Amino acid sequence: MFKINENYLKLPGSYLFSNIAKKVAAHTEANPDKSIIRLGIGDVTQPLAPAIIEALHGAVDEMAHAETFHGYAPDLGYEFLRSAMAKNDYEARGCDIKPEEIFISDGAKGDSGNIQEIFAQDNKIAVCDPVYPVYVDTNVMAGRTGTYDPEKEVWSDVIYMPCTAENDFVPELPKEVPDLIYLCFPNNPTGSAITKDQLQVWVDYANKNGSVIIYDAAYEAYISEENVPHTIFECEGARTCAIELRSFSKNAGFTGVRLGATVIPKDLKCNGVMLHSLWARRHGTKYNGAPYIVQKAGLAVYSEEGKAQLKDQIAYYMRNAKTIYDGLKAAGYTVYGGVNSPYVWMKTPDAMTSWDFFDYLLENAGVVGTPGSGFGPSGEGYFRLTAFGTYENTAKAVERIKSL
Amino acid sequence: MFKINENYLKLPGSYLFSNIAKKVAAHTEANPDKSIIRLGIGDVTQPLAPAIIEALHGAVDEMAHAETFHGYAPDLGYEFLRSAMAKNDYEARGCDIKPEEIFISDGAKGDSGNIQEIFAQDNKIAVCDPVYPVYVDTNVMAGRTGTYDPEKEVWSDVIYMPCTAENDFVPELPKEVPDLIYLCFPNNPTGSAITKDQLQVWVDYANKNGSVIIYDAAYEAYISEENVPHTIFECEGARTCAIELRSFSKNAGFTGVRLGATVIPKDLKCNGVMLHSLWARRHGTKYNGAPYIVQKAGLAVYSEEGKAQLKDQIAYYMRNAKTIYDGLKAAGYTVYGGVNSPYVWMKTPDAMTSWDFFDYLLENAGVVGTPGSGFGPSGEGYFRLTAFGTYENTAKAVERIKSL
Repeated sequence: MFKINENYLKLPGSYLFSNIAKKVAAHTEANPDKSIIRLGIGDVTQPLAPAIIEALHGAVDEMAHAETFHGYAPDLGYEFLRSAMAKNDYEARGCDIKPEEIFISDGAKGDSGNIQEIFAQDNKIAVCDPVYPVYVDTNVMAGRTGTYDPEKEVWSDVIYMPCTAENDFVPELPKEVPDLIYLCFPNNPTGSAITKDQLQVWVDYANKNGSVIIYDAAYEAYISEENVPHTIFECEGARTCAIELRSFSKNAGFTGVRLGATVIPKDLKCNGVMLHSLWARRHGTKYNGAPYIVQKAGLAVYSEEGKAQLKDQIAYYMRNAKTIYDGLKAAGYTVYGGVNSPYVWMKTPDAMTSWDFFDYLLENAGVVGTPGSGFGPSGEGYFRLTAFGTYENTAKAVERIKSL
Repeated sequence: MFKINENYLKLPGSYLFSNIAKKVAAHTEANPDKSIIRLGIGDVTQPLAPAIIEALHGAVDEMAHAETFHGYAPDLGYEFLRSAMAKNDYEARGCDIKPEEIFISDGAKGDSGNIQEIFAQDNKIAVCDPVYPVYVDTNVMAGRTGTYDPEKEVWSDVIYMPCTAENDFVPELPKEVPDLIYLCFPNNPTGSAITKDQLQVWVDYANKNGSVIIYDAAYEAYISEENVPHTIFECEGARTCAIELRSFSKNAGFTGVRLGATVIPKDLKCNGVMLHSLWARRHGTKYNGAPYIVQKAGLAVYSEEGKAQLKDQIAYYMRNAKTIYDGLKAAGYTVYGGVNSPYVWMKTPDAMTSWDFFDYLLENAGVVGTPGSGFGPSGEGYFRLTAFGTYENTAKAVERIKSL
C-alpha cells in the first residue's frame, strides 16, 4: 500500500493568503453591498507597461510562423535575457555575475520553494521572524523542521531570528550556526531595508561558518536610499556563500505573467561540488523553461523604453506607500517600512492581535490587510498594508482607516 | 557547514537530451557545411494555430489595461480552462472528472517530476523499461531508488518492467507490488499504445494492491485506433488509484508556451487523506500559477476553430510518422509505433548498440535520433525517431537513411 509524505500533515492550517481569501469571500457574501479595498496580498494592479505589451505581441507573432517559431527553451533560459540581467542587474552595479550563473524560471516563489531540494535533509535553516511563509513551509514538506509547537507557533528545528521594532527589523546574527539562512531585503513583510554594511556582516558570517545565504531580492526595485544594496553580490565574498532570487513580479508587474531567476555563482561549493551544477541538474530534469514570449517580455524590461516606463510604475506604487505611511502616522498609528519597499508595516492599536485587527479593519473599514502573525510569532501585534492598489483606492482606504 | 543533497551525485551522467545536444554541437562544429536533420528530441516545429495566436494577442491586450489586467492566477488555475478540460477531455468521453480535480500547471515535465514529492520516502516505484528519464531521475533526487549498478544501468530499489518486441511493448504486471506505478501511453519512447482492456487490468491491479498509477497521457491526441483509451479515467475504478498528467505540448504545439495539468480525483486517498489536498497544498505553496495569457491560449485549444486547426496539425505530424514508418520498413528495418503516436521505434541494424547507431546515423546521414538505451537498459538495441519535424525534412531524412 502506498504511503503519503507525512510531513505535509504537519503543516498547520492552510496557506496564509488562502485563509485571507476565504475570510474576505465570507464577508463579501454576508455584505454584498459593501465595497472592499484590498491592500492584503502583494498583487499588482497597474497594467503591463507599453514596451512589455509590444514585446509580447511581437513574440506572439513570431510563434505564428514556422521560421520564427520557438519550441523548448534552453534549460537555463534564453541567452538574451540572461545577458540583459547580467549587464543591468550586476555589471552596472560593479558585481561579478556571468550570464551562465543566472537561471531563468517562472517566478521567485517557485525558486524559493524549490531551492532547498539541493541541500541535505539534516541541514538547519534560519529565517527572519516574521517571514514569507514559503521558506518555512517548503522546508516542512521536506521534513527539515522537526516538530511544531502549536502554542508558540514555531518548529523545533528552525532557528528564528526576531525582527521587531527593537532591532529596527534587521535580525541579529544567530547564536546557533545555521546551514541555510533565508534573508529577504527590502523585507517582506516588514518593509524594512538592510544597509550594505549590515549585509556585509552577514556575508562574512556565512563565509566564516560555512553557511549559505538564500537572498530574496524580489523588492530591490523599490529601494530609494543610497546605502541600501540592490543585490547581495554588492558585498565582498558573496560569490562563495550566496544564492540570489530575483523576481519580475513587483518591478515589472509580472505577477500574472510569471518570470523570475535564481543566481548561483560558480564559486559556491561544498567539498568541491558546485551548487550551480546541482541546480542546473534540477532545472534540466524538473523544469522545461519559461515561455519564449514571457522571456521576450522580460527582455523588454531592460530596454530604455521599458526602464523609463517601469520607473514611473514604481513611482506610482511608492506614492501609494507614502500615502499609507503618512496617513496612518498622522492618524496616530506607529508605522514602519514604505521608504525602500512597497510594504507598510504597522503596529496594531490597543494591543489588538493581528487577526483581531484584520477582522476589525475588514468589518469597519472594508479594508483587507495581512495579519503580521501570519508571517511568524514575532509578527503578532503587527499588520501589513501593501502599496500595490490603485492610488484612488489606496487614498480611500487610508481615509477610511483614519476615520475609524 | 552546509551539506548538499547527496542523491544528486548518484545520478549518472547528465540528462539524455543534453548529451545529445552536446554530441550534435560537436559534430556541427567539425562539419559546418553538412546539414543536420533533427528527429531526436520531441520538440514540435509547426507554428501555433491561428486560433491560439488570436487568443494570445487578445490576452496580451487585456494585460495592457487596468480594467482587464490579471495578476496572480488562482492556485489551481483559471476556472475557464479547468471547465473546458473537464468538459472536453473527460465529460465528452463519459469520464467523471470535475473541474476542481484538475490542477493547471506550466507543463507535464514539471508535474511528472514533482508528483513524487507527495509520497513517502520509502515508497517503491515501478517504471516501464525503456522510460522517459524524468520519472526515475526525480525519484533518484528524492533518495527513493537505492544504489546504482553502472554495469546493468539499473537502480536497486526500482522495479523495472521490460517493454520489448516480445511483449509488444506493454509491460507485464510486476511480481513485487510497487507503491507507485508510472505508465505512459501512447508510450514515449516506444510509440506503442495500450488497449482499454489492457489498461483496465492495471487499474484493477492497483486497486487490489493499494498502488497508485501515475498515468502520463501527454500523447493522447495522436491516438487513431478505436480501442485505445484517451485517458485512464475511461477505466472503471481509476478514480481510486490513478493520477493523470496532461500536456499541451504535443497536441497544441506548446513546448515553448508551457501548459499542462494534473488530474487527481478526490476519491484517491491514503488512510482518509486525499492526495488532492496534498497536491493542492504543494501547488499553493511552491507554485504561482500558469501565466494568464497562456491559460487563455489553452482555452483556445478547446474552441471549435482551435480543435479543427489542431486536428490538421496532428494529421501533419502523423503523415510524418507514416513516412518514417513506411520508409524504414521498405528499407528493411524493423519498426514499431507511429500509429497512435508521433514516435517511431526501430531496432538498430546488425545488432549495433543504440549509441553506435546514433553516431553512425549522425555521421553518415546527418540525422539525429534518440538512442533507445538512453531510456533504460531494455531500450538497448532500439532507436527513436520523432515525427515532429517538417514534412520536407522528415522525407529527406528517410531518403538519407534508406540510401545508407
